[in-house]
Amino acid sequence: MTPLQLYTYQTPNGHKASIMLEEIGLPYDVHIVDIENGKQTAPEFLALNPNNKIPVIVDPDRDRTVFESGAILHYLAERSGVLLPGSDAERIQVLSWTLFQAAHVGPTLGQLWNYKIFAPERIPYVIDRFAAEANRIFRVLDGQLKRQSHIAGEAYGIADVMTWPWIHAGLNKLGLALELTPNLARWYSAVGARPAVQRGLLVPRLLRHESAVA
Amino acid sequence: MTPLQLYTYQTPNGHKASIMLEEIGLPYDVHIVDIENGKQTAPEFLALNPNNKIPVIVDPDRDRTVFESGAILHYLAERSGVLLPGSDAERIQVLSWTLFQAAHVGPTLGQLWNYKIFAPERIPYVIDRFAAEANRIFRVLDGQLKRQSHIAGEAYGIADVMTWPWIHAGLNKLGLALELTPNLARWYSAVGARPAVQRGLLVPRLLRHESAVA
Ligand SMILES: N[C@@H](CCC(=O)N[C@@H](CS)C(=O)NCC(=O)O)C(=O)O
Ligand SMILES: N[C@@H](CCC(=O)N[C@@H](CS)C(=O)NCC(=O)O)C(=O)O
Repeated sequence: MTPLQLYTYQTPNGHKASIMLEEIGLPYDVHIVDIENGKQTAPEFLALNPNNKIPVIVDPDRDRTVFESGAILHYLAERSGVLLPGSDAERIQVLSWTLFQAAHVGPTLGQLWNYKIFAPERIPYVIDRFAAEANRIFRVLDGQLKRQSHIAGEAYGIADVMTWPWIHAGLNKLGLALELTPNLARWYSAVGARPAVQRGLLVPRLLRHESAVA
Repeated sequence: MTPLQLYTYQTPNGHKASIMLEEIGLPYDVHIVDIENGKQTAPEFLALNPNNKIPVIVDPDRDRTVFESGAILHYLAERSGVLLPGSDAERIQVLSWTLFQAAHVGPTLGQLWNYKIFAPERIPYVIDRFAAEANRIFRVLDGQLKRQSHIAGEAYGIADVMTWPWIHAGLNKLGLALELTPNLARWYSAVGARPAVQRGLLVPRLLRHESAVA
């Protein structure tokens, strides 16, 4: 097959896509979109994602362009038959937890990142509010992982791939911790030990095929 | 069939589910979860959604419980065969734009709501930042609706149901406007004129079957 084309950058949302690509084992090329220098608003990239955000994948053989990491992971699971549960009942659970990541885990930790690290002034009320919400989200995940091995069921799957890079960023960049959430800690170590996760984290720092957008 | 069970409250996220139920025409009962008085953290409700948020639907005949509005709308579209595009290529577009709503439209307007209306102090940097992001999102949608009639393609579908209640709230509660986004304005009027949208907005104020959780 023609390699899948991944447009990405060294961020948690980018890593969801690169980890998934490493999990499924289909060939892919990497294109760096330098979002720190505005390349995500170049017309060539806006044609791929009008919302000017990485990651995006293009599947030349099927003439598909997919943006939003949750849609990308669903697409790649169906494309490859990897990390896709069999039954409709399991699939709808995966979709709920994929959306939970997209709507709650990502936006909350993303806002914490902005207000704790990037904002011109540190505003305690705002930082505390997003940190409290991040801790609540950690507890929701911990409860889920107390009942079962992985986020959307017993099997490792795309809800885990969606969530892991953000927990990783929360621990390494945002001062969040896993002491009070032992089940989340167990899951974090187990998923982080997967070779595909380790490899995916190196993308795009370690490019398979160098290339750049715009 | 046994009626679907909708757990909801009078909010934009709740209205996504009630509008969808009105669109598909399957029987449903409404249960009010009074989130202004903490009923979303009652054990009975956490058993339905561990993330303590409405909306949730239960489908007794198939023994399914679905939370996250994006997952609910996908489930109901597949359950009913209504508002579901036929081709895989169209479906993946719908999933991308459903996630765009869940990850960007909802969280941004939700944060603006908090900081503009609920927060104990008004912090201009924070309000301005979320308002600017809301206006950017309006422009992304406007561009999409300039190229085609609806958000994820020519046909009205679940990406529109996801998005409409938040645009409605943006205009009516958050001081956002459509003057600079004429294509979004055209879509907003057209979708708002649908009888199912009008009826869905009345839920749970106008209950089909009175009932309350906890
Ligand atoms: N909901 C999106 C979020 C993607 C996202 O926020 N990407 C960031 C990098 S982590 C980005 O490209 N930011 C550039 C910008 O917003 O201009 C997804 O899950 O794919
Ligand atoms: N991403 C969720 C958002 C749901 C949501 O935020 N629901 C709010 C009301 S609009 C809620 O139940 N809040 C109660 C709480 O957070 O405690 C979805 O799309 O279903």
